[in-house]
Amino acid sequence: MLTRQDCIDLDAADPLRGHQKDFVLPDDVIYFDGNSLGALPHCVIERLGRTVTSQWGKDLIGGWNKHWIGMPVSVGEKIAPIIGAAPGQVVCTDSTSVNLFKLLAAALQLNPTRRTIVSQTDNFPTDLYMAQGLARLVGEQNCRLKQVDEALLRQSIDDDTCVVMLTEVNFRNGRRHDVAAITRAAHARGALVLWDLAHSAGVMPVHLDAWDVDLAVGCGYKFLNGGPGAPAFLYVAKRHQERAIQPLAGWMGHAVPFDFEADYVPGSGVMRFLCGTPSVLGLSALDAALDMWRDIDLHAVRDKSQRLSRLFIELVSGADALQSLVLISPTDDNARGSQVCYQHSDGYGMVQALIAQGVVADFRAPDILRFGFSPLYNGYVDVWDAVARLAGLVASGTHLHDDFQNKSLVT
Amino acid sequence: MLTRQDCIDLDAADPLRGHQKDFVLPDDVIYFDGNSLGALPHCVIERLGRTVTSQWGKDLIGGWNKHWIGMPVSVGEKIAPIIGAAPGQVVCTDSTSVNLFKLLAAALQLNPTRRTIVSQTDNFPTDLYMAQGLARLVGEQNCRLKQVDEALLRQSIDDDTCVVMLTEVNFRNGRRHDVAAITRAAHARGALVLWDLAHSAGVMPVHLDAWDVDLAVGCGYKFLNGGPGAPAFLYVAKRHQERAIQPLAGWMGHAVPFDFEADYVPGSGVMRFLCGTPSVLGLSALDAALDMWRDIDLHAVRDKSQRLSRLFIELVSGADALQSLVLISPTDDNARGSQVCYQHSDGYGMVQALIAQGVVADFRAPDILRFGFSPLYNGYVDVWDAVARLAGLVASGTHLHDDFQNKSLVT
Repeated sequence: MLTRQDCIDLDAADPLRGHQKDFVLPDDVIYFDGNSLGALPHCVIERLGRTVTSQWGKDLIGGWNKHWIGMPVSVGEKIAPIIGAAPGQVVCTDSTSVNLFKLLAAALQLNPTRRTIVSQTDNFPTDLYMAQGLARLVGEQNCRLKQVDEALLRQSIDDDTCVVMLTEVNFRNGRRHDVAAITRAAHARGALVLWDLAHSAGVMPVHLDAWDVDLAVGCGYKFLNGGPGAPAFLYVAKRHQERAIQPLAGWMGHAVPFDFEADYVPGSGVMRFLCGTPSVLGLSALDAALDMWRDIDLHAVRDKSQRLSRLFIELVSGADALQSLVLISPTDDNARGSQVCYQHSDGYGMVQALIAQGVVADFRAPDILRFGFSPLYNGYVDVWDAVARLAGLVASGTHLHDDFQNKSLVT
Repeated sequence: MLTRQDCIDLDAADPLRGHQKDFVLPDDVIYFDGNSLGALPHCVIERLGRTVTSQWGKDLIGGWNKHWIGMPVSVGEKIAPIIGAAPGQVVCTDSTSVNLFKLLAAALQLNPTRRTIVSQTDNFPTDLYMAQGLARLVGEQNCRLKQVDEALLRQSIDDDTCVVMLTEVNFRNGRRHDVAAITRAAHARGALVLWDLAHSAGVMPVHLDAWDVDLAVGCGYKFLNGGPGAPAFLYVAKRHQERAIQPLAGWMGHAVPFDFEADYVPGSGVMRFLCGTPSVLGLSALDAALDMWRDIDLHAVRDKSQRLSRLFIELVSGADALQSLVLISPTDDNARGSQVCYQHSDGYGMVQALIAQGVVADFRAPDILRFGFSPLYNGYVDVWDAVARLAGLVASGTHLHDDFQNKSLVT
């Protein structure tokens, strides 16, 4: 078993160590919730100040021409290499939920003889809800959502499957799908795929083009560090773009928005997946945060992510006080995202007590403790200290104290 | 005819004069485009700094519980009195376009035996586009958009009219509808109404409840000064809320979002009109900007708005060089929003030349010059100076110079 000194040595030798200084992190906090909300990059502070004071304040409406109108595309193009997409296929706009709706509706049109969306019962809820909302709107005869257990997924893809909608890394347990294999299986049955990269983008290599993915969405505020409620992104493979017209036909997706025509004509390519006026503040923050990715090797990020999570699992498994925690994440590094999750009936109190001791993790109902690892700012000694504190508070029963039982929202 | 000194005296006596200091405005700019993008309130700078550095930077994921999760509702409740809405009917989220889609789909459900959306051919394009997108998605047999000339509007409301969707103040010519009268006419034929308040909210009294309006949307970045791409708002009258389920069924509109259930159950009341994770930076800026409305009498704002626009019309009509400008806004103060618009075949060059002289107005294709008045920061002498500069540059032919003919985007 590694010692704390071993972890200090690992941090010292870590090739990504230099990135920690790019982030604002309180001195007394170990932050294992970057998979909910990424930490604040220093560069975002300067950039937002400039967007507000200099651009909005001085250029006023002229800011659109000078700075902002191209941002959904330019920020999308910054995300593209992070998810293995050639140019012209990614835009950054709206929320993940809204983008899911656009792409699901586009899938119905791209694959018009089929009506079923296949997804996983424990997919992230908003993915399921958006599909349910679409199905309710267009009617059961045109669209229905089939929610199946993960084990039944491949066999559930049949001749009526229009699109398979899945999240690469499960938000509850960190299980990672084999995107390429499922995509091949779906294509073999004539179905499209829509991948949610919320827990993938920025923490592991993603190869949308190489994997032949049709459609994808993802999140700007987790491992891309774009800030709370950052705009999301969407990907539409080039081969589908000119045939897909999405229903959220706002003016920013129009072929000539500033001609103010009365009839909608979709813009060319992925531009047609824009809708209303985008959030410039949100785009600016994310745009600044994305600059750091120019110098980052995603294989190195993935390697460190796997080492951090494996270390966490090993330390917990070696801690006497933590034997009642049930690991629900895969032990196979390759089948695990950048998080480690445990079930425990006292999980809520454990997470709250841990937060009180400066280790921020999160709780997912009904009984899951979730630890997310952000290799750009989390280190090996952070893992060691977190497990030590968790073991200490469980050994002493601190987590059973009333202070840690009041449920409140945790996102 | 008033002199410039008369205008200086009017400014000195203006009860709203004190608010100008609440805004950042470059010294050399007269800004008549607050109906496209409101100016930057000083308080927003401090607030965004706090949201980023203190809330995101220090509280990290805890920021959701401490500061952010309630913002779509709390910001909505700040907007509510500005638009004449009792509590519990307004939320602030997403874009105007996305909110239009939610409410149009809700209208189809609230008025299920009817399929036609009636709107005006020269309504703001995104309003028409969203209706077209919805109609295409659900099929002609379930929804169609009827776009009619303004003059034919009332007679076009018939037994198949599900909802009448209009913008109170026309973005091209500043004509203002009689919301109460059209709402009554629509209700008399069994139709609902959906009003777009983009050019109303924050510049004139609006009485959604008293006018018996069913549904409304509006914009955060025009007269509410929330910044570029600020989140929009929506209003659903209490009487409709429990029957309306909208299709953009994201997790933030779920009854218990943090229970992470697999099936969508709409939240109570207007909460169910939320969708994905909201833009916290956008909400924070707008939230700060809205604080100034606690002390502002909207009747005083409307009174000054009418005086400014009337003065503009009078000065143009008295300027020899400007006789070829064709006024397309109503001369009746009550029938005009807070903008004055002219047609001229050289309009594009005139607007560009005027901007070069420090007077920011905007151009709307194909030939419209648009001057928007924001009574919180525009003064009478601004109007006098703007018209004098316009007359001067037209008299000298400056606007015909090549420099002012290159078309670029103006929003």
